[in-house]
Amino acid sequence: MPDDFTPDWTATPPAPGTYRAIAKMGRADQVVLPSARYFAQLRHELDLAPEFFETKRDGNLPVAEPPACPLDPAFLDSLREIVGAENVETDAYSRVKHSYGKLMEEVVGLKRGELHEVTCAAVHPRGKADVRRIVALCDEARVPLYVYGGGSSVNKSFLPEQPGVTLVMSTHMNRVLEVNELNHTCRVEAGCLGPALEDALNRAPELFGTRHRFTQGHFPQSFEISTVGGWFVTMGSGQASTYYGDAASLVLAVEMISPAGAPDGIINTSDYPATATGPRVLDMLKGSEGALGVITELTVKIFRYLPGNRRYFGYIFPDWTRAVDFAREVCQGQFGLPAVFRISDAIETEHGFQMYPQPPAVEWVLRKRGYLPGKRCICLGTVEGERDFTKLVRSKVGALARAAGGMTITGRQAKKWERDRYTSYLIAEAVTDYDIVMDTVETSVKWDNLHRIHDAVLAHAATVPGSFCMSHMSHFYPYGTNLYFIFAVKGQLEDYVAYRNGLIEAMVAAGGSPSHHHGVGRLMSPWMERFLGREEMAVLRALKRHFDPNGIMNPGAGVGGGHESGANTRVTRSDSS
Amino acid sequence: MPDDFTPDWTATPPAPGTYRAIAKMGRADQVVLPSARYFAQLRHELDLAPEFFETKRDGNLPVAEPPACPLDPAFLDSLREIVGAENVETDAYSRVKHSYGKLMEEVVGLKRGELHEVTCAAVHPRGKADVRRIVALCDEARVPLYVYGGGSSVNKSFLPEQPGVTLVMSTHMNRVLEVNELNHTCRVEAGCLGPALEDALNRAPELFGTRHRFTQGHFPQSFEISTVGGWFVTMGSGQASTYYGDAASLVLAVEMISPAGAPDGIINTSDYPATATGPRVLDMLKGSEGALGVITELTVKIFRYLPGNRRYFGYIFPDWTRAVDFAREVCQGQFGLPAVFRISDAIETEHGFQMYPQPPAVEWVLRKRGYLPGKRCICLGTVEGERDFTKLVRSKVGALARAAGGMTITGRQAKKWERDRYTSYLIAEAVTDYDIVMDTVETSVKWDNLHRIHDAVLAHAATVPGSFCMSHMSHFYPYGTNLYFIFAVKGQLEDYVAYRNGLIEAMVAAGGSPSHHHGVGRLMSPWMERFLGREEMAVLRALKRHFDPNGIMNPGAGVGGGHESGANTRVTRSDSS
Repeated sequence: MPDDFTPDWTATPPAPGTYRAIAKMGRADQVVLPSARYFAQLRHELDLAPEFFETKRDGNLPVAEPPACPLDPAFLDSLREIVGAENVETDAYSRVKHSYGKLMEEVVGLKRGELHEVTCAAVHPRGKADVRRIVALCDEARVPLYVYGGGSSVNKSFLPEQPGVTLVMSTHMNRVLEVNELNHTCRVEAGCLGPALEDALNRAPELFGTRHRFTQGHFPQSFEISTVGGWFVTMGSGQASTYYGDAASLVLAVEMISPAGAPDGIINTSDYPATATGPRVLDMLKGSEGALGVITELTVKIFRYLPGNRRYFGYIFPDWTRAVDFAREVCQGQFGLPAVFRISDAIETEHGFQMYPQPPAVEWVLRKRGYLPGKRCICLGTVEGERDFTKLVRSKVGALARAAGGMTITGRQAKKWERDRYTSYLIAEAVTDYDIVMDTVETSVKWDNLHRIHDAVLAHAATVPGSFCMSHMSHFYPYGTNLYFIFAVKGQLEDYVAYRNGLIEAMVAAGGSPSHHHGVGRLMSPWMERFLGREEMAVLRALKRHFDPNGIMNPGAGVGGGHESGANTRVTRSDSS
Repeated sequence: MPDDFTPDWTATPPAPGTYRAIAKMGRADQVVLPSARYFAQLRHELDLAPEFFETKRDGNLPVAEPPACPLDPAFLDSLREIVGAENVETDAYSRVKHSYGKLMEEVVGLKRGELHEVTCAAVHPRGKADVRRIVALCDEARVPLYVYGGGSSVNKSFLPEQPGVTLVMSTHMNRVLEVNELNHTCRVEAGCLGPALEDALNRAPELFGTRHRFTQGHFPQSFEISTVGGWFVTMGSGQASTYYGDAASLVLAVEMISPAGAPDGIINTSDYPATATGPRVLDMLKGSEGALGVITELTVKIFRYLPGNRRYFGYIFPDWTRAVDFAREVCQGQFGLPAVFRISDAIETEHGFQMYPQPPAVEWVLRKRGYLPGKRCICLGTVEGERDFTKLVRSKVGALARAAGGMTITGRQAKKWERDRYTSYLIAEAVTDYDIVMDTVETSVKWDNLHRIHDAVLAHAATVPGSFCMSHMSHFYPYGTNLYFIFAVKGQLEDYVAYRNGLIEAMVAAGGSPSHHHGVGRLMSPWMERFLGREEMAVLRALKRHFDPNGIMNPGAGVGGGHESGANTRVTRSDSS
């Protein structure tokens, strides 16, 4: 096959009103095309002949009218009465857009024009009074209610299973309400997107009259297109979570409106960092994924913003075992933790080196010193906090790296990574115009089952010809970490789904959690009961029954008890009537 | 009144089988008498004439037979069948002993021979199989089941309201099962007492063949007489919590046996540090206080044991405001946190100085430099962790102290405090032979309501003549801390109860939590709904209904929804039949 072959990539943002616009990952204006080198690598890995690129299905077509909404028009009128007609969208594009997240299954399906059940209306509440009335109305009328934050879900977390309406939180309910410098907390509406919150905190002296500048510490890959409420309900983890903590732990209090006690019942947890007053209701809402109620407001932890103290590091290790041992020593060393901390396995390391080759002299030195392709593993990271603290942690990390046979590669790679942190994954987008899917699955591991799970998933991946799978760790605790698997597979939607589900099955069968930070949604539902057990599932169902007795909140989502094995005690509209 | 007057203190451990033995605080062999200086101070503060000490009621009498157990003898035989006759105690002493904690209301009541309702039998399960059968049996027979760990409760957390049986966890279910060096976790049975766990971890190389020595990081004042299960279910905080975290956060997984799903239903949460698989059931059991089920086993975090790196510090500040500001700066400084960290208010500081006077030259220097009695506040603490980390934190704490107008008093006070950390409070014990009660209440505060709550509680205390109240902060977060109020009051039991409840009322009315780390039990029940709100109480009741549909687990305890205001939806035996 010709070396200079280039597919007909689309380099422009999608046309408005199209399936492609809805399937767009990242910000609408961000288009990242695979480089010639990247494409050559991919062709090699997936064994793709030029003919493979003859058919392009890019979804650049206007969204067709979905099936008519079966809801009573009077019900929609009641919604309009609550939020104003301009805040109830029932056109085809809005209905489809607010039914879909960014799981590759959804993205590819959209590009092929294959429509799942969609919502009847996208409703944009202007504040909590609107939300209260809408929740009460839907509960009364037994109409399913879905919650859409930034739309970056990768697990079909708000994909309608029954016609209903979808609350869009980011349109109006996106304000930073208060920066409390004394308490180091910030009150923010649930629909606030990452950059708006971070910017307000960075500029807190100008906007809120504080003495210090602040940061909120949560920087997921979806940072630019996800909301604070979404971070909390999905239990997300940011790229600096090893230092700042996971999203749910960054929240001190929430306000949630649920059908329980409607129209007056609002859960409003206190923002004490600790109280010994029984099980904390706040904790029960972490990971609730819209199945228990609508989070309207959050009080989040904030930290002094000290970008000048940030230090970068990078190391290469002779092999995966030594890299893992190094990471564990860092996390258990009791000298403080790095912020960003990422270690690639041997496959991902080589993938990176082939994308961004080292000068031959450097490669010669690496091999000479025993850092061999196919075995060596790369690590990169940052340290944040007070100046002397970052110096100390940086130095301890370095000493442990050397003790584990690592060699510094300077902080240059970490800086490059940081520059592209929210966009590099967009190269996965262009290839879906053809029958190629690049996607990820991820799991929690403990140090003592990490290798078993890593081996099991890669062994399964290796059984599928023309596919490709690699892995890294990126969220660390003294007690374990996560494994993030990035894979590419060619074929039809069913081929991708089968491959992906095979990886998940291998992951869970080996003892891994169905998810470390992507959440459950409808994707992971089938694995939930096996992972949690029947008894824990019963507790989640009891919570669901309490908050949402008529089963209107995100019906069918895993957290609400959908897709269980065994006896069907699932709470849905039809069951509860 | 003569300066050399000394009451007839009892200097010997209590006689076996007596009320006094049950009322004994701390270890049975520990007796701490007030020094002459301390006693003089107390007489002055409470205005106590020698005649006050004419009547001594020390409870040194054999426990009288409590009311006969109304349970069917066949039921008790079934219990004997499960655990063996030797593990079912129905004698008067055992029944009373296992019904009482160490709240001063309980201690004083016992010394006066006033008996509350008591349990019918103390049952000592040998393992989880016994617990499963007992829970199922009690659920079937609708017999209340109470759980007794080390018995150090200070909120009437297992005081029976209805006759039932009490599981004693520490007799047999007290083993350290596994030290997992890779994961830095330890599996331990719920009834293990603090010293046994800590000792096993300190000696892990000898006992478990590990490479490192470990510590579990939780050192409450009750360390020697409380259990790991108790720490978790009460949401306790140890004296080094600022660094290691609170008890509930130190637990990664638990096994709990509840009536839900009995006899086969066991909750066994996974020990991943994080998974995005919906709300974590582990979190829902934190603070459950025996009202949801019986915790049988826990997986706790462990840390490398590095006592050689511990550094001590002590400072004096010109006033409370500057001491509080200093503490907040430390906690928000992002350089790491101290382990022990305690700051006394002006009253407690002077109390300490009068107990342990400084040499006149030191006192002269203090006053000369503006650290004046009645305003100055003392701080003491330790730093733990890796050697250079402790050096860094120690140095940053010192710099912030100086910046806030503080002066070092060296680490000597911190070392003295550490030596007496588990026994110094026992001076409160001797005085209860007379009509004097020294006790504590404690609350969570945020930085922005700390002063309001502190002022409100002390203002209320000042309205009661012949009483005494002082305070310190001892558990810190970037977002707030706790206030611990120590008080002394003379009079009858009712006088103490009225005074104590007045403090709690002032605390909660000013916005404080009913408890930062002592839990709810029956003491704080009346304040729970006001603090949590009706909506959160309803969630706790829903959990209660799920785990314990017949209301047999610790009926009447606050966490289970007891003592609510408004409509009575409380789940009890009689309601559910």
